[in-house]
Amino acid sequence: MAATGVLAEILDGDVYKYYADGEWKKSTSGKSVAIINPTTRKPQYKVQACSQEEVNKVMDSAKAAQKSWAKTPLWKRAELLHKAAAILKEHKAAIAECLVKEIAKPAKDAVTEVVRSGDLVSYCAEEGVRILGEGKFLVSDSFPGNERTKYCLTSKIPLGVILAIPPFNYPVNLAVSKIAPALIAGNSIVLKPPTQGAVAALHMVYCFHLAGFPKGLISCVTGKGSEIGDFLTMHPGVNCISFTGGDTGIAISKKAGMIPLQMELGGKDACIVLEDADLDLVAANIIKGGFSYSGQRCTAVKVVLVIESVADTLVEKVKAKVAKLSVGPPEDDCDITPVVSESSANFIEGLVNDAKQKGATFCQEYKREGNLIWPLLLDNVRPDMRIAWEEPFGPVLPVIRINSVEEGIHHCNASNFGLQGCVFTKDINKAMMISDAMESGTVQINSAPARGPDHFPFQVKPTKSIQLVRLIDIMVDG
Amino acid sequence: MAATGVLAEILDGDVYKYYADGEWKKSTSGKSVAIINPTTRKPQYKVQACSQEEVNKVMDSAKAAQKSWAKTPLWKRAELLHKAAAILKEHKAAIAECLVKEIAKPAKDAVTEVVRSGDLVSYCAEEGVRILGEGKFLVSDSFPGNERTKYCLTSKIPLGVILAIPPFNYPVNLAVSKIAPALIAGNSIVLKPPTQGAVAALHMVYCFHLAGFPKGLISCVTGKGSEIGDFLTMHPGVNCISFTGGDTGIAISKKAGMIPLQMELGGKDACIVLEDADLDLVAANIIKGGFSYSGQRCTAVKVVLVIESVADTLVEKVKAKVAKLSVGPPEDDCDITPVVSESSANFIEGLVNDAKQKGATFCQEYKREGNLIWPLLLDNVRPDMRIAWEEPFGPVLPVIRINSVEEGIHHCNASNFGLQGCVFTKDINKAMMISDAMESGTVQINSAPARGPDHFPFQVKPTKSIQLVRLIDIMVDG
Amino acid sequence: MAATGVLAEILDGDVYKYYADGEWKKSTSGKSVAIINPTTRKPQYKVQACSQEEVNKVMDSAKAAQKSWAKTPLWKRAELLHKAAAILKEHKAAIAECLVKEIAKPAKDAVTEVVRSGDLVSYCAEEGVRILGEGKFLVSDSFPGNERTKYCLTSKIPLGVILAIPPFNYPVNLAVSKIAPALIAGNSIVLKPPTQGAVAALHMVYCFHLAGFPKGLISCVTGKGSEIGDFLTMHPGVNCISFTGGDTGIAISKKAGMIPLQMELGGKDACIVLEDADLDLVAANIIKGGFSYSGQRCTAVKVVLVIESVADTLVEKVKAKVAKLSVGPPEDDCDITPVVSESSANFIEGLVNDAKQKGATFCQEYKREGNLIWPLLLDNVRPDMRIAWEEPFGPVLPVIRINSVEEGIHHCNASNFGLQGCVFTKDINKAMMISDAMESGTVQINSAPARGPDHFPFQVKPTKSIQLVRLIDIMVDG
Amino acid sequence: MAATGVLAEILDGDVYKYYADGEWKKSTSGKSVAIINPTTRKPQYKVQACSQEEVNKVMDSAKAAQKSWAKTPLWKRAELLHKAAAILKEHKAAIAECLVKEIAKPAKDAVTEVVRSGDLVSYCAEEGVRILGEGKFLVSDSFPGNERTKYCLTSKIPLGVILAIPPFNYPVNLAVSKIAPALIAGNSIVLKPPTQGAVAALHMVYCFHLAGFPKGLISCVTGKGSEIGDFLTMHPGVNCISFTGGDTGIAISKKAGMIPLQMELGGKDACIVLEDADLDLVAANIIKGGFSYSGQRCTAVKVVLVIESVADTLVEKVKAKVAKLSVGPPEDDCDITPVVSESSANFIEGLVNDAKQKGATFCQEYKREGNLIWPLLLDNVRPDMRIAWEEPFGPVLPVIRINSVEEGIHHCNASNFGLQGCVFTKDINKAMMISDAMESGTVQINSAPARGPDHFPFQVKPTKSIQLVRLIDIMVDG
Repeated sequence: MAATGVLAEILDGDVYKYYADGEWKKSTSGKSVAIINPTTRKPQYKVQACSQEEVNKVMDSAKAAQKSWAKTPLWKRAELLHKAAAILKEHKAAIAECLVKEIAKPAKDAVTEVVRSGDLVSYCAEEGVRILGEGKFLVSDSFPGNERTKYCLTSKIPLGVILAIPPFNYPVNLAVSKIAPALIAGNSIVLKPPTQGAVAALHMVYCFHLAGFPKGLISCVTGKGSEIGDFLTMHPGVNCISFTGGDTGIAISKKAGMIPLQMELGGKDACIVLEDADLDLVAANIIKGGFSYSGQRCTAVKVVLVIESVADTLVEKVKAKVAKLSVGPPEDDCDITPVVSESSANFIEGLVNDAKQKGATFCQEYKREGNLIWPLLLDNVRPDMRIAWEEPFGPVLPVIRINSVEEGIHHCNASNFGLQGCVFTKDINKAMMISDAMESGTVQINSAPARGPDHFPFQVKPTKSIQLVRLIDIMVDG
Repeated sequence: MAATGVLAEILDGDVYKYYADGEWKKSTSGKSVAIINPTTRKPQYKVQACSQEEVNKVMDSAKAAQKSWAKTPLWKRAELLHKAAAILKEHKAAIAECLVKEIAKPAKDAVTEVVRSGDLVSYCAEEGVRILGEGKFLVSDSFPGNERTKYCLTSKIPLGVILAIPPFNYPVNLAVSKIAPALIAGNSIVLKPPTQGAVAALHMVYCFHLAGFPKGLISCVTGKGSEIGDFLTMHPGVNCISFTGGDTGIAISKKAGMIPLQMELGGKDACIVLEDADLDLVAANIIKGGFSYSGQRCTAVKVVLVIESVADTLVEKVKAKVAKLSVGPPEDDCDITPVVSESSANFIEGLVNDAKQKGATFCQEYKREGNLIWPLLLDNVRPDMRIAWEEPFGPVLPVIRINSVEEGIHHCNASNFGLQGCVFTKDINKAMMISDAMESGTVQINSAPARGPDHFPFQVKPTKSIQLVRLIDIMVDG
Repeated sequence: MAATGVLAEILDGDVYKYYADGEWKKSTSGKSVAIINPTTRKPQYKVQACSQEEVNKVMDSAKAAQKSWAKTPLWKRAELLHKAAAILKEHKAAIAECLVKEIAKPAKDAVTEVVRSGDLVSYCAEEGVRILGEGKFLVSDSFPGNERTKYCLTSKIPLGVILAIPPFNYPVNLAVSKIAPALIAGNSIVLKPPTQGAVAALHMVYCFHLAGFPKGLISCVTGKGSEIGDFLTMHPGVNCISFTGGDTGIAISKKAGMIPLQMELGGKDACIVLEDADLDLVAANIIKGGFSYSGQRCTAVKVVLVIESVADTLVEKVKAKVAKLSVGPPEDDCDITPVVSESSANFIEGLVNDAKQKGATFCQEYKREGNLIWPLLLDNVRPDMRIAWEEPFGPVLPVIRINSVEEGIHHCNASNFGLQGCVFTKDINKAMMISDAMESGTVQINSAPARGPDHFPFQVKPTKSIQLVRLIDIMVDG
Repeated sequence: MAATGVLAEILDGDVYKYYADGEWKKSTSGKSVAIINPTTRKPQYKVQACSQEEVNKVMDSAKAAQKSWAKTPLWKRAELLHKAAAILKEHKAAIAECLVKEIAKPAKDAVTEVVRSGDLVSYCAEEGVRILGEGKFLVSDSFPGNERTKYCLTSKIPLGVILAIPPFNYPVNLAVSKIAPALIAGNSIVLKPPTQGAVAALHMVYCFHLAGFPKGLISCVTGKGSEIGDFLTMHPGVNCISFTGGDTGIAISKKAGMIPLQMELGGKDACIVLEDADLDLVAANIIKGGFSYSGQRCTAVKVVLVIESVADTLVEKVKAKVAKLSVGPPEDDCDITPVVSESSANFIEGLVNDAKQKGATFCQEYKREGNLIWPLLLDNVRPDMRIAWEEPFGPVLPVIRINSVEEGIHHCNASNFGLQGCVFTKDINKAMMISDAMESGTVQINSAPARGPDHFPFQVKPTKSIQLVRLIDIMVDG
């Protein structure tokens, strides 16, 4: 077991310690929370069940640490982040092993997540040096009636203590994407990792610990939502919450009041396919976009909206590729691995049964063993089926046949979850028009939705980004 | 009465109509809300008490109007705003009269508010043309591991329907500062004016009506908070709330959930005075900053923190100037006019009585007639007095004597209301250090707090602005 | 004659005065320069032949005026520019008449030039308010080894006296595009208009005069190049030269030394047409792009590079449209009007004769009467012909048939004049790739080259812009 | 000798090779150029005397290398620059030794120059990733009359081959400050180092060579100015010249024509001292600013303009500090070392003699041995003395006593060399006003002029920066 070696410091018996005030600690609660391996469905790890009193202490030291961190030169903050990034990459194998055991992420993808996270930490450091280091210098005589007698210097300042709550599917990457920007900007961090993924997150925090950040600047508390969940999100010491996840986010927003929130919740990302699209390209992107990590991604393709005239061909092509997907344990780098929990698998099964009753065409037989669900393409899905609107967060993908582009856009915009979307066409004018008309934060042209390259914006209103993939290479010595 | 002339269209008998779907309407509720003149303490105007059903209709037409407005060329949106700005300035006398009667704003200041509002509308139009017209064009190869095969185009898009709730003290200016940015950015507006100031706001909306904006794009609903207040802020059709006011904002934030909020609530703006300050300059700024519009400004100087060694001199100078302030009705352009309501006057009196009991030095005798409270400087205020921390929103200004700059900064930062602040010193190093240390969104150096020039930022964390007033003029033919 | 009325002030007998120190003056040289009407080939107007001594005086007053103008509030500068813009539009008829007589610009286009110029002046004013009003506020601790102890405030300051030399083809528009940015930024202007177009320019300056700019801030000197040309460009009082024109620019750059230069010289703008292009659209754009104002535009289509397989069809379509072009005097709003001078017509004829000798296919018979040259499409042009590389600046357009896109890009990039270019294709990937590969400052996709919309960049290296025209309209209630 | 070890590869006998096409080469000219050690006044090193033919080859391979480099992903370009930066720092001792021998730079400062250069290379890499990776996305409907039917994507593209000519005083730092930005932006570099400093530059280039940049992307040619100087600056293969130095720059600008130029020439940086200044701080900054590296810096304090009433005191304080400056060889880390050449020493002596004749007060006796000139403060300098206006570029500093701030500003602005300047005062208003009135590209408040922190702008019109040093530390737990 990875942790028995270098990370023994963070273990107390078989229970992982939490991290507070620069130290790895055992909770005074004497309790722990078990983490179930989705593949074996047996307990894999244990983490501390922190108490509310421990949360209070964490908040106090986070506040104190933040005060002096905010006065640390920007380049020193960046230097520490670069160091943490390097250490994180060195620990990629150990952390990836946790991801395999805790969330059944295929082994290779687990390593990729860690490496990409290290790159992101470094990138954020350099971004922050620039964003934080440059304010505006305004003069008064721009506005009618004013002489040039007043100057205004604006700068960005830290918010204070940031509560970071990442989701289970990227417990490392979506943690550092909250931690790194917060730290370079002079804030302190209190991390509440998801239960599934908590140990990977603790290992990641250990890398930051090794990098030598000041005591109290970064904390990581684990425990039961019922005990410390609301207590954390409603804590008066929190100055900002950064949350990625599902409906819980809505509840948090109501409890948190005027605290600034950064939220990324669900997505029912539509894939609109036109007649003139390169259908092999589309099929490849549907497979990658719809079935990677068994569809447990907020940017997964969640519904295909294809023009009727090319639907048969496209479905055949996708079907052929589905047949080639490997299904099994994450340790074997299977394409399709068990979904994160039994309740998740049950929810997915509910959507499949509903579609069956209402007449969807099953391109494959539905098959499930424990948390493992075989990849399933549902053709001829109609708007009255739940799966036309709800996120399975599993390897089940609905295809809706449309008679016009307008119909596709209409379905896309009728969804409550406008995170991303994509459109496939070769036509430059249609590409621009449709991506403009889709009410999603991001629309990919000729590529599956994705968060990345990681410096591309990943937002919702009032910003929109259109991402265009160039498919042919440079043709001349231009 | 101003309204009997050109504005007859917006009156139904003696009750002002509300504005919806491009028309001036009478509520089907058959009810009205009376507006009390703070000076006479008698009803001055009546406005419609709109029903929830009417709010629903307003929301529907706001949504529909927004869809096509978002596709209107930017320069056309700007053109309409410039037109509205010009019409607003033409109507300055009529609107100012409402401000005098509804909120007892001194006549000249009332005219200034309208003119400045017109300038702001025009300025926002031109800002918007630029901010909305320019997005980013990103390439993929900035981030490690990516070839230059993916482009990203980002742009700003409208939020949808904006609910604008301005406060009583600037019912025109703080309405247009919400309306103009929203409109140029392609949003529609539902305005809920404060009861005191509702008629001025309706007149202002009438100017936008005359400018010829599309039907439904701008609406103005009046009525009882108990009937339509929460109904508006929790309405599913609202995509963003822009609110200026007091504690109500906190309640709204909890009800509104994940809707983007723009809030500007209270301020206990501190004025720190150092030994080397130009005390005449300080006294003049305290008078202007503390007693303009009887202190009913969020950016009013709300507490003076002066170094003991110069406190006697400063207090004498301020006292001398207070003695010259004229007190009386707004129609006579008096410096000090009645505060907005009896309950407000009672609240102020409560703070004064508390200070008296706890031993503050009264530089003037406390005097009140109805809503009219004579200007009052309270010296030797101590932290145990309520007025050291609470906003009177009236012509009562506490002076706290401090023994060190640190003490002043500490008091400033212990406040919950860090809107603005100011520091007076000639020393360039102290000026920069203290303004940096004060945890206020804006710190003015050698000038009273202010929202303005109107293109200067007016924000809280994570942005901070330091505004420096240059006191001496250019000396050479440089 | 337009000038006999309102503009009598700027005439001395039949000679137009020059403008210096806020006054309209007669040159002490006693000499004048005649302006030949390209249509009648007879003298139309006369302007002063200013002396070097007069230039010296103009420079002195320009320097003095600039010093105080630089301290004038930005909004006041903008206000004057808005005023000038409005006056300019009011004078559109009189100025357009000059353009017709001096440079044979079709009457409607002449009016358009003036109106567009007014819009540009206003736009520049508002841009300048923003660009000049906002600097940067930097802190020291972004760079390794520095504490946050040093702040840096950057701002834009004026250059001083700007010498503006616009070309004959847009003597009003390309004058104001130099004047307006210079003025809002706090500079003064010395304008040396082209001989053809000098009277239109003087009328335009008269509008600025009426707007009430300070004395000496704007001057306009006319005269012989041999007398004052080099004297102006090498004058020590000049702080920047903004020049649009031809090869003269290269000579100026060598004489001017370290003075900042803004130059826009020739362009051999290529139009690459792919197999999948909409050929009707292409033909329409070739006509507009190649023959507007008889091809006397730096952004005119100057060579068509069409894939062989669609060349016959395209040439036929263009030929049909050429046949419909009206040819004659500008007063009749003919499409094709006389070129600006006899020497220009002779130069064009030289290119035509060279092409004839070397075997180009003449789609029309070559025809010339005086300065009037009938529109001519030359097919099967080959790289050994001069017209493949040189700018006719007349209504003669070469077509080169290519066998691959690479060949087209290669020809485009082998040219010395990479101002703009365009590519026609429906394919999104090819559009992006080809526009990337073309070494032109701007590449239009599916549209003819153009300077405009006027806020789009119009530059050469190291900036490049790709402009994409959207051809289909919004399809859904998106 | 440092080079005998690791750098043997770049030596041919005792002559340093030049670098072209990724290889270290011996010139076919068979000739070499000797580098005189300023301290010993004997030949120290030899470098190749390259021929014009070799320059031609270098230009060809620079052009070819640039084409493919421009298509290399930004992050890969950055990665190579980070690698070069690290290698450069590792070689700091060897390179510093060259600086000591070639330009008599004090040993410690020589090491600092190399380290700071490494930091700058890394910083430029990250800046470039951001500046190059982000363009603008504009829409057409910002400008009057346009629908939203046209999009514009702007991006920055490389210029091509950059000729970099750094000066002798920072042959490493002012070389990399040209090389690093050029490379990250996709350009290739041809470096022509100064003769004094050529070997340090070759060592530096060797570090880039080790980092593994593509062949031909970076070249370094050495030789006689008479042979290859004009040949380089007028070479048609050069797309941009970046030059730092003296009057030669003016000549280059006339020869280079329309090629973009980046020039930084002389500076007569004024130091204005007010009555209220902290005179100890001023004296310390005058010593550092005026005598570091024996005054051979473009940002050196070159003239002190002090208010008469504090002049005696200030001169005494400076005098006392001058007495403590160590004078001798750079190997001993002396404060004052020999100036770069005998002709330079003679020029300085000429200025000193002129000042003596015209009656300047010598605070020390003038003393010179070979190229070594003892530090000299000249009081009571008047405008008729050459040293009031000319740059000694040596350890001789004139003090002009002024009776008003206006007089000081006037002297400052009458100079032709407005690079930087500084003002010492505690008064915030005077500091801002005077720095505004001084016509220098940069004005430091309460600090000597400096290029640095290296991310601060270092420019002339039309940009100006004001840099403010904060002298007191944070006072409270703010």
